[in-house]
Amino acid sequence: MDQKTADLKRSGITRDLAAVAMGQLKGDLLVKNTKLVNVLTGLIEENIDIITFGEFIAFVGDASNHPSPDTVINGDGRYLIPGLIDSHMHVESSMIDLPSFAAGILPHGTTTICPDNHEMTNVFGLKAVELFHKTAEGLPLNVFPAMPVCVPSIPGMEDAGASISAEDVEQAYSRGWSELQGEQMNFPGVIYGDSHVHSITAEGLKASKTLTGHYASEDLNSGLNAFIASGMTACHESTSTGEARMKAARGMYVQQRYGTAWLDLPQLVPAFLDNPEMDTRMFTMVTDDVTPVTIAEEGHLIRVLREAVRLGVPAVKAVQMVTINAAQLLNKAGWIGSIAPGKAADMVLVDDLNHFNITRVISNGTVVAVDGKLTVSISKYDYPEWALNSIHLDPVKPEDFIIEAPSADAVEARIIKLIPGMVYTKEESEEMVPSNGFIEGDVERDIAKMAVFYRHAAAIPKADRKSLALLRGLTLKPHSAFATTVSHDSHNLLVIGSSDTAMAAAANGLIETGGGMAVVVDGKINAVLPLPFAGLMSLDPIEKVASQLKEVEKALKRAGCPHDSVEMTISLLGLIVLGELHLSNKGLVRLADGEPPKFVPLFK
Amino acid sequence: MDQKTADLKRSGITRDLAAVAMGQLKGDLLVKNTKLVNVLTGLIEENIDIITFGEFIAFVGDASNHPSPDTVINGDGRYLIPGLIDSHMHVESSMIDLPSFAAGILPHGTTTICPDNHEMTNVFGLKAVELFHKTAEGLPLNVFPAMPVCVPSIPGMEDAGASISAEDVEQAYSRGWSELQGEQMNFPGVIYGDSHVHSITAEGLKASKTLTGHYASEDLNSGLNAFIASGMTACHESTSTGEARMKAARGMYVQQRYGTAWLDLPQLVPAFLDNPEMDTRMFTMVTDDVTPVTIAEEGHLIRVLREAVRLGVPAVKAVQMVTINAAQLLNKAGWIGSIAPGKAADMVLVDDLNHFNITRVISNGTVVAVDGKLTVSISKYDYPEWALNSIHLDPVKPEDFIIEAPSADAVEARIIKLIPGMVYTKEESEEMVPSNGFIEGDVERDIAKMAVFYRHAAAIPKADRKSLALLRGLTLKPHSAFATTVSHDSHNLLVIGSSDTAMAAAANGLIETGGGMAVVVDGKINAVLPLPFAGLMSLDPIEKVASQLKEVEKALKRAGCPHDSVEMTISLLGLIVLGELHLSNKGLVRLADGEPPKFVPLFK
Repeated sequence: MDQKTADLKRSGITRDLAAVAMGQLKGDLLVKNTKLVNVLTGLIEENIDIITFGEFIAFVGDASNHPSPDTVINGDGRYLIPGLIDSHMHVESSMIDLPSFAAGILPHGTTTICPDNHEMTNVFGLKAVELFHKTAEGLPLNVFPAMPVCVPSIPGMEDAGASISAEDVEQAYSRGWSELQGEQMNFPGVIYGDSHVHSITAEGLKASKTLTGHYASEDLNSGLNAFIASGMTACHESTSTGEARMKAARGMYVQQRYGTAWLDLPQLVPAFLDNPEMDTRMFTMVTDDVTPVTIAEEGHLIRVLREAVRLGVPAVKAVQMVTINAAQLLNKAGWIGSIAPGKAADMVLVDDLNHFNITRVISNGTVVAVDGKLTVSISKYDYPEWALNSIHLDPVKPEDFIIEAPSADAVEARIIKLIPGMVYTKEESEEMVPSNGFIEGDVERDIAKMAVFYRHAAAIPKADRKSLALLRGLTLKPHSAFATTVSHDSHNLLVIGSSDTAMAAAANGLIETGGGMAVVVDGKINAVLPLPFAGLMSLDPIEKVASQLKEVEKALKRAGCPHDSVEMTISLLGLIVLGELHLSNKGLVRLADGEPPKFVPLFK
Repeated sequence: MDQKTADLKRSGITRDLAAVAMGQLKGDLLVKNTKLVNVLTGLIEENIDIITFGEFIAFVGDASNHPSPDTVINGDGRYLIPGLIDSHMHVESSMIDLPSFAAGILPHGTTTICPDNHEMTNVFGLKAVELFHKTAEGLPLNVFPAMPVCVPSIPGMEDAGASISAEDVEQAYSRGWSELQGEQMNFPGVIYGDSHVHSITAEGLKASKTLTGHYASEDLNSGLNAFIASGMTACHESTSTGEARMKAARGMYVQQRYGTAWLDLPQLVPAFLDNPEMDTRMFTMVTDDVTPVTIAEEGHLIRVLREAVRLGVPAVKAVQMVTINAAQLLNKAGWIGSIAPGKAADMVLVDDLNHFNITRVISNGTVVAVDGKLTVSISKYDYPEWALNSIHLDPVKPEDFIIEAPSADAVEARIIKLIPGMVYTKEESEEMVPSNGFIEGDVERDIAKMAVFYRHAAAIPKADRKSLALLRGLTLKPHSAFATTVSHDSHNLLVIGSSDTAMAAAANGLIETGGGMAVVVDGKINAVLPLPFAGLMSLDPIEKVASQLKEVEKALKRAGCPHDSVEMTISLLGLIVLGELHLSNKGLVRLADGEPPKFVPLFK
């Protein structure tokens, strides 16, 4: 449901809600005998009963004199918290489509998501936004799509499958496809006054949307002010307490991230834990990117909540950060984010406020999960053919990975240094000695080759269809390779390997299956995760995709990478809005020293 | 400005705002070297500079490397707080029109008001709403008119000059005349399911407005839930800590009132002062009704802020209650309520956080007051003739005040007991002995006569044109009377006196002057305050009206009433939505014991 629909629905039943509250009409559902975690007052109320009517809460208090609804859940003194709100995330990162995602997260208590469907929009453009909006219809949770605004992330420096204009953004709002503005990642464009970027931002302001940002710079004075003054009021890119404090102070909600691979939360909570006087209303928590394995094995936003409490955040404050604070960020606190009369009947019954073991999840007045099992049926979506056929590449050959040496002499080359679990890279420099006129990777020094192939439908210049670079950080064994079409943001085909033949084998494996991830070990394909929807997502249930992904992760370890979920870090090697050195289909992009991003040559 | 206009304005200048923040463009105004009261973090930041551009803040931080704007204010280390937001008030209570009101309050730091122009709408209907909207245009402060929804307060139990239908409410929103929904006072109608009341509430929800309430019942379980579930999320009628806590817990912003006569704040702050763990985001402070004397002599919302701090509320929390909390109540925290880049440039420079002596007020980027003096010019509004001619009554005669005895025997009569400074009355009972077939007042027992005359233009049945009752609480001397056309909510002509001739003299004094207040002492008119606009407001500046009102208040003391500002309590004697006994033009209305309001006879 969107806000407008909710307001309309509620406007039609206010007399019924009042009658249920007064005990003159039977409600639909009674949750009795709970300890209410009241996020509005920050206090816990004992012996609280809740009665719902339709999608809304009609009554909160002592219902012993109210007629009993047909459905009664005895809370047995358990804690009742509002349904969790994830104010920034990407469904695509979980490699499943929206219906499978909804089925996967509802048992974990997340009842509202704000998916920035940025990845599929990089592949398909505005039609992905419309398609996503349609897939959300009728799902038993609140989906507030965030309009992607950086497609491609930096125009002119990479090629995605599509681009998004200010007119597209205006259309998405006027047609009701998007409820908020997605992450503005081109912060250099914002602060240096790029007119395209500002024309898009203007559409968000004109439509009175919440604009979300992505500010990853150390300039917390002029630059941060310029970014926020331009409209962005939420950001999930803080990595230090100083950054978090300053963003909160300057009016930007801190969306503390704790995804599968980017685990910023522990670095951020001291921002307020060390400042007990500080108001925490500007702090929220988000998942951003989580793998299906994480959801299936550890949960969704509830996992972040558990971690916050483990880190010492007082439980009620932590709950506020994934409920009322997030609702206020979204300007929807009148509807969601708290358990109060007239609000959405989104509630989660938990055993305690440490482990938050979930026994019941109620979303929009319906019991959607009991003891971790989904209790509603969610239909599969029937996708159009174009959505399932997005890898427009002929098979590649080992020769496609050749890096020609600039001269016969040894040469200083730029090396992208991948740091597992971090969203940024570092630039390093190594002397490379040509062999037969070519530059090869070097397993001894942990230097692999890396290639990006343009994989979308558009006709682009030949020079932009492929780019090559050198990478450190994966410690690949000989004859190993990894290929993926999950490669932020343009989601071109990224291939990394210790030999050209292994790289070609990995790439061709994916070109055959319509996209996904493939690992080559000892020259042969060892694991494949097929992701046919946009080359990013499976249509299978989360458990199956989680299991396939685990095979990929195991294969990556067999290929020599010891780190967990390293495929997530790899998937950012093409994300040129991050520091310090990344590879787009057009070449190496350096973003550092407070300067705008620029192309740099592989060899110095 | 309204939210939409602000969003549009800002959308057009985001590049300029960014350039000013980056130091590449000169801003309009620099406020340097302040202690920023940061209501977002609850902390105070030292050595903060602010640069504005147009109506917005472009930069907050260390501006020493930024080009200096032409206008510079040196804060000299003073505290800077956001412009104050009064989320519930009635301009009419200050007895001056909106331009005079704006001129009166801006030097006191209030930069946003939400006037429920309920009184003039009771006189003129929807055309008052349009007129009010027009008078707000171009004023140098934010005016968010709240659409009055209880006109008359209880249909069928009183006659005002007009009535407001659900269609009227819909029109006010669709035409942009109102930004939120005014106080829903008919809480019995809401909780018992009155369809007219709910049809009006539905219009507010459909238009996604903030709906404000007025819940004055002791039922904090079913009734309160029913009221809130129906849509109302703010209320300024709490008088006890228990009530305040429960409203906050159930999702209703507590608008702690501290007007001229209703001084609820001291009774409410223990709700959170005694609960240091409590989150105070649901607490705001409002003026509701203040006389021109209060504003001229003590200030506006800043006076409430001072009182809160005096009562022990931590200063920053108190500031939050009249800034960010109020902005969140209004769903406008993205624009007003805090000092941050991109927000409205509404700021108040104060010497300290105890007395809050104001040295500068900046509203929408303009310096509007220096050291308590207005520094902008505010034009008078040219009102249409109908607005200045609203007392449709012929002169009255002493015989109009005769109360005929029901029989020759002594009889038990209901007495309205006025309690100075309280919004409610109590019902008492006294034995009255007829004299020549009439019931007279009794100065010895402090029993006065009271009359309500219908004073609007409509043709109504003769029986409804006048009603009579008995009143205790004013301790009037013989031959004294008070008449007023300020008589909530229908603003009929209310006359109270110790003799029929004095009452007639007071009434006729007002009928001649076109409305206002008149006091008769020793049989002669002793003071008159003319209020020609709707019979409620003067067009003179606040100081003049304050001085006239003080004369009325002095005259009331000469007439025997020892209490300060007792005219405010008197003005509620006709407000039948309050407990316990009130008089409308149709007769005595009793509201008590948790039952719907009902007519009761004067004699038992």
